[in-house]
Amino acid sequence: MTIPSPGYSITVRVEVPASADATAALTTAVSSTGGALTALDVAESHTDRLVVDVTCDTRDEAHGQAITEAIAAVPGAVVRKVSDQTFLLHLGGKIEVNPKVPLKHRDDLSRAYTPGVARVCLAIAEHPEDARRLTIKRNTVAVVTDGSAVLGLGNIGPLAALPVMEGKAALFKQFGGVDAWPVCLDTQDSDAIVEIVRAIAPVYGGINLEDISAPRCFEIEARLRELLDIPVFHDDQHGTAIVVLAALRNALRVVGKSIDDVRIVVSGVGAAGHAIIRLLLTQGARDIVACGRNGAVHSGEQVMEPFRQWIADHTNPRHQSGTLKEVLVGTDVFIGVSAPDLLTGADIATMAPGAIVFALANPVPEVDPLAAGEHAAVVATGRSDHPNQINNVLVFPGFFRGLLDAHVSGITDAMMVAAAHAIADTVQPGELNPSFIIPSVFEASVAPAVADAVRRAAKR
Amino acid sequence: MTIPSPGYSITVRVEVPASADATAALTTAVSSTGGALTALDVAESHTDRLVVDVTCDTRDEAHGQAITEAIAAVPGAVVRKVSDQTFLLHLGGKIEVNPKVPLKHRDDLSRAYTPGVARVCLAIAEHPEDARRLTIKRNTVAVVTDGSAVLGLGNIGPLAALPVMEGKAALFKQFGGVDAWPVCLDTQDSDAIVEIVRAIAPVYGGINLEDISAPRCFEIEARLRELLDIPVFHDDQHGTAIVVLAALRNALRVVGKSIDDVRIVVSGVGAAGHAIIRLLLTQGARDIVACGRNGAVHSGEQVMEPFRQWIADHTNPRHQSGTLKEVLVGTDVFIGVSAPDLLTGADIATMAPGAIVFALANPVPEVDPLAAGEHAAVVATGRSDHPNQINNVLVFPGFFRGLLDAHVSGITDAMMVAAAHAIADTVQPGELNPSFIIPSVFEASVAPAVADAVRRAAKR
Repeated sequence: MTIPSPGYSITVRVEVPASADATAALTTAVSSTGGALTALDVAESHTDRLVVDVTCDTRDEAHGQAITEAIAAVPGAVVRKVSDQTFLLHLGGKIEVNPKVPLKHRDDLSRAYTPGVARVCLAIAEHPEDARRLTIKRNTVAVVTDGSAVLGLGNIGPLAALPVMEGKAALFKQFGGVDAWPVCLDTQDSDAIVEIVRAIAPVYGGINLEDISAPRCFEIEARLRELLDIPVFHDDQHGTAIVVLAALRNALRVVGKSIDDVRIVVSGVGAAGHAIIRLLLTQGARDIVACGRNGAVHSGEQVMEPFRQWIADHTNPRHQSGTLKEVLVGTDVFIGVSAPDLLTGADIATMAPGAIVFALANPVPEVDPLAAGEHAAVVATGRSDHPNQINNVLVFPGFFRGLLDAHVSGITDAMMVAAAHAIADTVQPGELNPSFIIPSVFEASVAPAVADAVRRAAKR
Repeated sequence: MTIPSPGYSITVRVEVPASADATAALTTAVSSTGGALTALDVAESHTDRLVVDVTCDTRDEAHGQAITEAIAAVPGAVVRKVSDQTFLLHLGGKIEVNPKVPLKHRDDLSRAYTPGVARVCLAIAEHPEDARRLTIKRNTVAVVTDGSAVLGLGNIGPLAALPVMEGKAALFKQFGGVDAWPVCLDTQDSDAIVEIVRAIAPVYGGINLEDISAPRCFEIEARLRELLDIPVFHDDQHGTAIVVLAALRNALRVVGKSIDDVRIVVSGVGAAGHAIIRLLLTQGARDIVACGRNGAVHSGEQVMEPFRQWIADHTNPRHQSGTLKEVLVGTDVFIGVSAPDLLTGADIATMAPGAIVFALANPVPEVDPLAAGEHAAVVATGRSDHPNQINNVLVFPGFFRGLLDAHVSGITDAMMVAAAHAIADTVQPGELNPSFIIPSVFEASVAPAVADAVRRAAKR
């Protein structure tokens, strides 16, 4: 059961009789329908009537409608307008482009534009590496999507994906000081995407691929890494893998187990699952079983696509087959990057003592975290309304800050591992406990620590 | 002969003996070599020595070097460092991306990013037209180049073109409130450029093509206009044509002639020349002779490419042939968008009385404006150091402001003519004279007037 969220906050403007009874009735209407009242502002006051803005968090659209109906049912009330805080915030978009140089006076124009700019152009034509010094390339990242796998919404296309990419760009600046720009491509052809990203690359110091569906994302990333001399990072893969490794490092500390001893089940063999498995293997994990829709992936399967084949070849050393529920029995770690409500508390109870459960499907996790918590030692989700939120926001701003500062041309496993350790280690030993294995997304020390770790790894 | 420009300003840090003589000698060193001293700042003072920053405008790199040498030759002077104001201003690039929404608190994140953003995505997936309301699309323009014809520098490629595109983006915001983003493409294949711009278009409300060489620019623009439902504008063509029409309108007022009566020579049959001819014809011009490298374009020529053929078919009604100098004799208007130093004052003297000369080649005009001014009634250039600067900056910020506000899908001649008239008419009747046919690029009323004219034309 989800709880009301400020992401679904509404403001209902309603006219009521000017009486204490009426405003009390509004409060009751919200609370009796399960809304979380955050403000009750009087917008207009007359001798006999009030116009009140009732702002409250709701669970979802249907819930917002139920609350509105409850308010409308207050005796004498007339609902004038219902507005949605999230939509209001999105009006006109979430990012803007601003000049960093003065353009008020003729001399400014002579330097920033013609004729002065011509000399800067010629200098770069002669020494292309100077573009990192004299243009936005040094601090700019493209956030590239084709809209094929946006959040949990699926293939909604490039235009509908834009609000996510804008949000990402805003977070890049806020947490990492990185100038990021949305590139939403109206094509889902891998060859075309590779060619377009290659062609637009001169402006950028890095490429962040985002919400591109598997298995195309693997090929697109691999080919771009070959073609380009700037780092290419698929956040759904590597951002997720890094933050999962960070959380797992601390969770294992909490339960006193070691990564090379534990049995791990990964539910989900898409972009995130693949990258998590790959990164955990580099860190010494030896017993990982991956589960897709049809249960455990094992080397006996027929006709697998190459990336699934890679998983089969590198996991499941005990050659298990069976459903997720079956292979989960006796394991130490569950990592879900798959689908809602696959497991119950009873399934978690079959895991080994000191079990670790990361149920990261969003917005509805693989298992209810409260039910899981009755049997597991550590529970984490992707949600903000439970402890231990595992969120890529902890990774990408600082990670790209480090990549850009270090002028790297490619990303190594060492950089990713260093970033994961940096995130984990911002949780001090005295802070570490089952409800705090991962810092808050607002922890200001995370991005600088990640950037520093990446810069150091790049130097080595 | 060019004069020193703030676009070529240098600061020479020099150590000299602490005496009035020494600083006087610095001043003399600059002025005797033809530099324009703008500041003399003491950076450090000691009992016996001073460290002075000498800032001065120079003509070009060689001139800056000559001035530096003259300063170094001052008795007792030691030059420590020479820095270039234009390069200093370009460090780190000229634009940045900033969040427009708060991201400080958990509730902010819930609305601008997950989970709230998912609802906005779904709303756009259902009603794509809402992207204009809920994303940056409403206010964002791509400044697209392939680096094939940058300023007067030629084919310097996409990376070296980036400083120009950044400058353009900065001007878009400063003068038009438009968020513009550089798209510098590492391909010069027309098919590839068309496909890339089509694919990146979801993010944008308009496309500004820039510095793409003719004749490819014609085909690319025409195909994109077919493919896209947002306006596509090639600034080198239409921006130039609009500002030339504006200047010509006022110049004709000054000399008391009418566009349908005058004989016009256009030197240059590239992107700008083609667009100027096209727009002047829509305004009633009847006698235009276009000149390329081999003289007057006429319908008797063999094997012409289609755009040149179009010019031949629509100009030169008196079937003239010959060199530029030959066809210039007796004409009323010269419009040069071609190459430096093609004509002398004596050539201008062969034009009809009350001649109008627009010598727009940059940085060196087709004819020296001072020499032209001895024989012509009105002279204009593209340079900022003569009266009547004809500069596209007067057009594109306001023009796109109007296009975006009006949500137009395409650009009409009526919009371009309306913009030209708006620019011309910001010069009040009492201000109009041979040295003021066009407003300053810093005239704040121009962009709003252009935007308003475009919005009205879009409504009609």
